[in-house]
Amino acid sequence: MLADIITIGDEILIGQIVDTNSAWIAQRLNESGIKVRQITSVSDEKQHILNALQDAHEQSEVIIITGGLGPTSDDITKPTLSEYFGSKLTENESVLNDLLAFVKARGIKLSERNRKQAEVPECCTVIRNPVGTAPAMWFEKDSRIYISLPGVPFEMIEIMEQSIIPKLVEVTHGRSKIIIHKNVLTHGISESHLAVMLADWERQFPTNLKLAYLPQPGIIRLRLTIEGKNEAQLREILEFELHILKRILPDAIFGEDEDSMEGVVGRLLLEKDATLSVAESCTGGNISHLITLVSGSSKYYKGSVVAYSNETKYELLKVNIDTLINYGAVSKQTAAEMAKGVKILCKTDYAIAITGIAGPDGGSEEKPVGTTWIAVATPDKIISQKFHFGDNRELNIMRASVAALNLLRLQLI
Amino acid sequence: MLADIITIGDEILIGQIVDTNSAWIAQRLNESGIKVRQITSVSDEKQHILNALQDAHEQSEVIIITGGLGPTSDDITKPTLSEYFGSKLTENESVLNDLLAFVKARGIKLSERNRKQAEVPECCTVIRNPVGTAPAMWFEKDSRIYISLPGVPFEMIEIMEQSIIPKLVEVTHGRSKIIIHKNVLTHGISESHLAVMLADWERQFPTNLKLAYLPQPGIIRLRLTIEGKNEAQLREILEFELHILKRILPDAIFGEDEDSMEGVVGRLLLEKDATLSVAESCTGGNISHLITLVSGSSKYYKGSVVAYSNETKYELLKVNIDTLINYGAVSKQTAAEMAKGVKILCKTDYAIAITGIAGPDGGSEEKPVGTTWIAVATPDKIISQKFHFGDNRELNIMRASVAALNLLRLQLI
Repeated sequence: MLADIITIGDEILIGQIVDTNSAWIAQRLNESGIKVRQITSVSDEKQHILNALQDAHEQSEVIIITGGLGPTSDDITKPTLSEYFGSKLTENESVLNDLLAFVKARGIKLSERNRKQAEVPECCTVIRNPVGTAPAMWFEKDSRIYISLPGVPFEMIEIMEQSIIPKLVEVTHGRSKIIIHKNVLTHGISESHLAVMLADWERQFPTNLKLAYLPQPGIIRLRLTIEGKNEAQLREILEFELHILKRILPDAIFGEDEDSMEGVVGRLLLEKDATLSVAESCTGGNISHLITLVSGSSKYYKGSVVAYSNETKYELLKVNIDTLINYGAVSKQTAAEMAKGVKILCKTDYAIAITGIAGPDGGSEEKPVGTTWIAVATPDKIISQKFHFGDNRELNIMRASVAALNLLRLQLI
Repeated sequence: MLADIITIGDEILIGQIVDTNSAWIAQRLNESGIKVRQITSVSDEKQHILNALQDAHEQSEVIIITGGLGPTSDDITKPTLSEYFGSKLTENESVLNDLLAFVKARGIKLSERNRKQAEVPECCTVIRNPVGTAPAMWFEKDSRIYISLPGVPFEMIEIMEQSIIPKLVEVTHGRSKIIIHKNVLTHGISESHLAVMLADWERQFPTNLKLAYLPQPGIIRLRLTIEGKNEAQLREILEFELHILKRILPDAIFGEDEDSMEGVVGRLLLEKDATLSVAESCTGGNISHLITLVSGSSKYYKGSVVAYSNETKYELLKVNIDTLINYGAVSKQTAAEMAKGVKILCKTDYAIAITGIAGPDGGSEEKPVGTTWIAVATPDKIISQKFHFGDNRELNIMRASVAALNLLRLQLI
């Protein structure tokens, strides 16, 4: 079963707001076995909305419309839907009662303008809005279902969760396919190399299984999607393919679904009851920031030194001054001494250290922008590795942070 | 002049990612005098993409297409565009050279699959991608302009800023209205309070001037947009209104347009030839991360200590153990001693210190989640201030970071 989402509002088309509603709706519909065919954002213009409705009607069985239901003059969804369905606007008693209760609870009076919100197309079924003044509306025409929702995200979400999704699931029961997604997170192999490594595996997929590559800095997310009727069978196929994937990529996979690199590292440290400290140069605090985004990180993370100058490396982290002079700040030796220094300073079991040239300046022929040394100190040794990132400062910081956390992860497993 | 945006990729239609590209593109086109008519998100299916192209062709003069340009098999934008324009894919020498340079800088070899990225429809003009492997493509047909861009946000933004926008402005010159935007960045006043403070001012606007509120954590961006034909006159009106705005909000405005709080603070430190260090607890390295996102920050920023445990506060920052026992880690006294400690440790002129309860755990009746103390040490004194943020961990970290940088800014001006 297919759905179209139509979002109405000039604020989206001038880029004033990012449309987060569509992604949320798409995800929830997907979970309910309804596949979104297209998302269309149109302006507050009657003819444009009518065209979008007609186009969606030709392609999908469920059409979700958000926005344009407010009390101001630029909100024209209701009269437009009225015209589209050949209906007329009339005051709805139950909506009016909800409105009166809503304003009474806030100690204000119902203005004429707000009373207009009780008017809905005669042909619709009203769906109550428990958290706002604009109700949702349910229409049926030529065995299509149309649902009009307010554009305010929390109102839309509340109405969808409480009323629309249960009703849709009931109405479409048996008509919709089951869709299951599984995400696998990888690090350390480029998208094109992954594609080569996974080509044979992908070729033997059943026709109802698909693979997608979703890259972000330092991480490539592999998404497996399977469609069908029998949930247990679909899950079995997914499990089987996942098993093969893990054999093809034994080291690159670090997590699944909602995992993050910093979350996985945190879990491993907790399991070992071990503590962590960090010495950062080129990443300027970003590794520490990622680690502390995880709620509960204070159980294993003790602290960091961001040593952005040679003096700080020398005075705080006790990096030997000869090391800095002989090998330079971006070197295996400096990284190792930084790791050792912060581990002693913060009295932790593990430590990460990183030093590199984030750019855009500071590069040389021998050490171009992006050259980075990462060291990890464990309870009994220090390992280090050289990396080459690109020449974009912000990206280098992100990629280097993920690579550093991954180097620690490999020592923890 | 009208534009359509078409985003290609199943990940949008299943709600796995929020489409932030469209809002960014819409905003930039708008600033260049091109109005976005419709945003359409379609799946990785040839016929669906062809239909969307045809529909856009009938309504708009500029068609921007993002996504589906990666090296993997689910990326089908290039063969589809080839078919749409009745062209064929051929290897492009300049793209191949860029690819070779790109992989060489990373010390890897060009795989057969990656080499495929050098293939583009013969009829297109290639637009180089300075930060990735997939080039952008510029097509013209029936006096429409089609631009295909990679879907990775930072690659798309880089190519748009460097190449596409200047070229579009040149090509469409004279055909479009002049639209000028001016952004003013504010901190410390809520959106609803700002709206009350600015109501009278907004009422006297000429009809071609509009004000928008664009909130982000800790910052509210006010965007003035003016439309017309005479650029000099439009700029004069903007200057005049800006002047009034600065009189209404003398303290809250900290920057304009592309400014950031960390960039403004950096400029002020450079002007004073002064140095900075940071002691972070609840923000876990994020303040340091923001500071070092600014290229050239090593000229004034020396380093930080992220003291996530009491031991680190005590041992590294030399916070008095009695202070921690008597007043607690989240207190005016601890914040002040942290600032003093890191300033001495890193031998800097200024220092920021922050300690608070980021949440979701760790709050108490007396000190609920969000309670934060920020201290700033200057060459001759230490000031501190208490803040209350909300109960969302990630938001607290961001808001607290901006507030801390702002407290330093106020000491620097």
